Amino acid sequence: MNNRFLDMIEGALYSFLPGGELREQILIDSMKYSLEAGGKRVRPMLVMEFNELCGGSAEKAVPFACAVEMVHTYSLIHDDLPCMDDDDLRRGKPSNHIVFGEDNALLAGDALLTLAFETLTGDSTAELVGDKACRRAAQTLAKYAGCVGMVGGQVIDLQSENTNAPIEVLRELVYKKTACLIMAACELGCLSANADEKQLRAASLYGESIGLAFQIRDDILDCTSTDEVLGKPVGSDEENQKSTFVSLLGLDKCRLMVDELTSRALEALDSFEGDTSALRQYALELAKRKN
Amino acid sequence: MNNRFLDMIEGALYSFLPGGELREQILIDSMKYSLEAGGKRVRPMLVMEFNELCGGSAEKAVPFACAVEMVHTYSLIHDDLPCMDDDDLRRGKPSNHIVFGEDNALLAGDALLTLAFETLTGDSTAELVGDKACRRAAQTLAKYAGCVGMVGGQVIDLQSENTNAPIEVLRELVYKKTACLIMAACELGCLSANADEKQLRAASLYGESIGLAFQIRDDILDCTSTDEVLGKPVGSDEENQKSTFVSLLGLDKCRLMVDELTSRALEALDSFEGDTSALRQYALELAKRKN
Repeated sequence: MNNRFLDMIEGALYSFLPGGELREQILIDSMKYSLEAGGKRVRPMLVMEFNELCGGSAEKAVPFACAVEMVHTYSLIHDDLPCMDDDDLRRGKPSNHIVFGEDNALLAGDALLTLAFETLTGDSTAELVGDKACRRAAQTLAKYAGCVGMVGGQVIDLQSENTNAPIEVLRELVYKKTACLIMAACELGCLSANADEKQLRAASLYGESIGLAFQIRDDILDCTSTDEVLGKPVGSDEENQKSTFVSLLGLDKCRLMVDELTSRALEALDSFEGDTSALRQYALELAKRKN
Repeated sequence: MNNRFLDMIEGALYSFLPGGELREQILIDSMKYSLEAGGKRVRPMLVMEFNELCGGSAEKAVPFACAVEMVHTYSLIHDDLPCMDDDDLRRGKPSNHIVFGEDNALLAGDALLTLAFETLTGDSTAELVGDKACRRAAQTLAKYAGCVGMVGGQVIDLQSENTNAPIEVLRELVYKKTACLIMAACELGCLSANADEKQLRAASLYGESIGLAFQIRDDILDCTSTDEVLGKPVGSDEENQKSTFVSLLGLDKCRLMVDELTSRALEALDSFEGDTSALRQYALELAKRKN
């Protein structure tokens, strides 16, 4: 996926961190470390694309895009902590708590989550998009990231470990843990361009569809790819006795589901009058990705 | 301190939690457990008092009051975690992570922080106070609770352990860790009543003054009170070799500072035309409190 907005996002992301040399500098360094270790910036890209699709200007979408990435980053820091997944590595680099200690990593996550809402509701953001769009963006992000969204999904994930969770649990888990923040990104893009309710619903459906398709594709690759192509060890799900879409439904049914979800994502884009080619291409690439 | 609004706050606090029986019910139970273990609800009371002082109606201040208490509660849950203060008890009850496990406690804190912002920016809150007040409340709370506010104060506290921190570090630590969230509460009360900038600044100064006075009084009691009167072991600061206002400045100077800060808080109230008696009384009681 060609992320046309990558430079713009990278340039803006750190501008919301406090400057100068502070007594709590290690906290800022720790927040920055994990922001810099970012991947493809998929969520900010979705904010920018939906903003453009709804006729907004890119500059209005930038604070919203950065806020979603801050929430994503905080969730990864807390996920990696010893009391959670206890991962020493994140994208090939030492996890935040390995570098800065558990206490600072915990607080860096807390501070990034808080900074996301400060970014969404700051005076300069309000000057760009107005008070109402700021308010609705914060409400939307909080809803999808909170106790019946992403954090709720984390809890369901913890509960489902080694339980052979049935398909309805797995579906809810993936919807909440993965799809919700992607839906938030799509909706925030629309909100930054003052889109109407119909467009918001369509963006949300696109986000939900690609979010679920992404995870099912992940499960497929885990049992059909090789370590070399995937870039990480395959077969880990089976080894960890984790319920996956493939273990519950089989490969053929999973491939069909990815195709159906991709079609649903593409149909959702029909609600928009603008140029949907980038978002179409992204949904199609996701369905066929090899790593 | 007689908290006139206690019943109203207790009644509303849990109404913002999702209802029904959820798959992530343990998360909601964990959030509720710590909200219920609340103390005197000082921060929500300050929101309600400043709202009334600025001529607002109580119903408008309730969501703001609850949001501040959610942030306070999340900070206590994360504070007690093994990687932080590792406290098994909080106000005489088992800490959140003792009851629900470290992973759920971490996530309950995350979810409460997120719920605070959802509460501030929800549709029903916007109908009461308008989009702008919602937006500014979220911005204000995020600023005071974030990386150069409360979380920043936590980091300075971690760094200062066993270092005999000098007075300027201790002052910044207490300002950020304790006073900032109290300042946020005072300002949010004003924002819920559409107060002007002069009133916001005065409320902020009141909050800063009583926040610092509270901590200095705490340090005084730790070395002058008895276990029985204080309700917790005295002398713990000296034992932990922690810098305190008393260890750095001596008892007499500390008593003088509490008096000066209290005077400053009372002066700040002169900016308001309404009945300031409850807030006056609170500042005076704080300066003389025995536990």
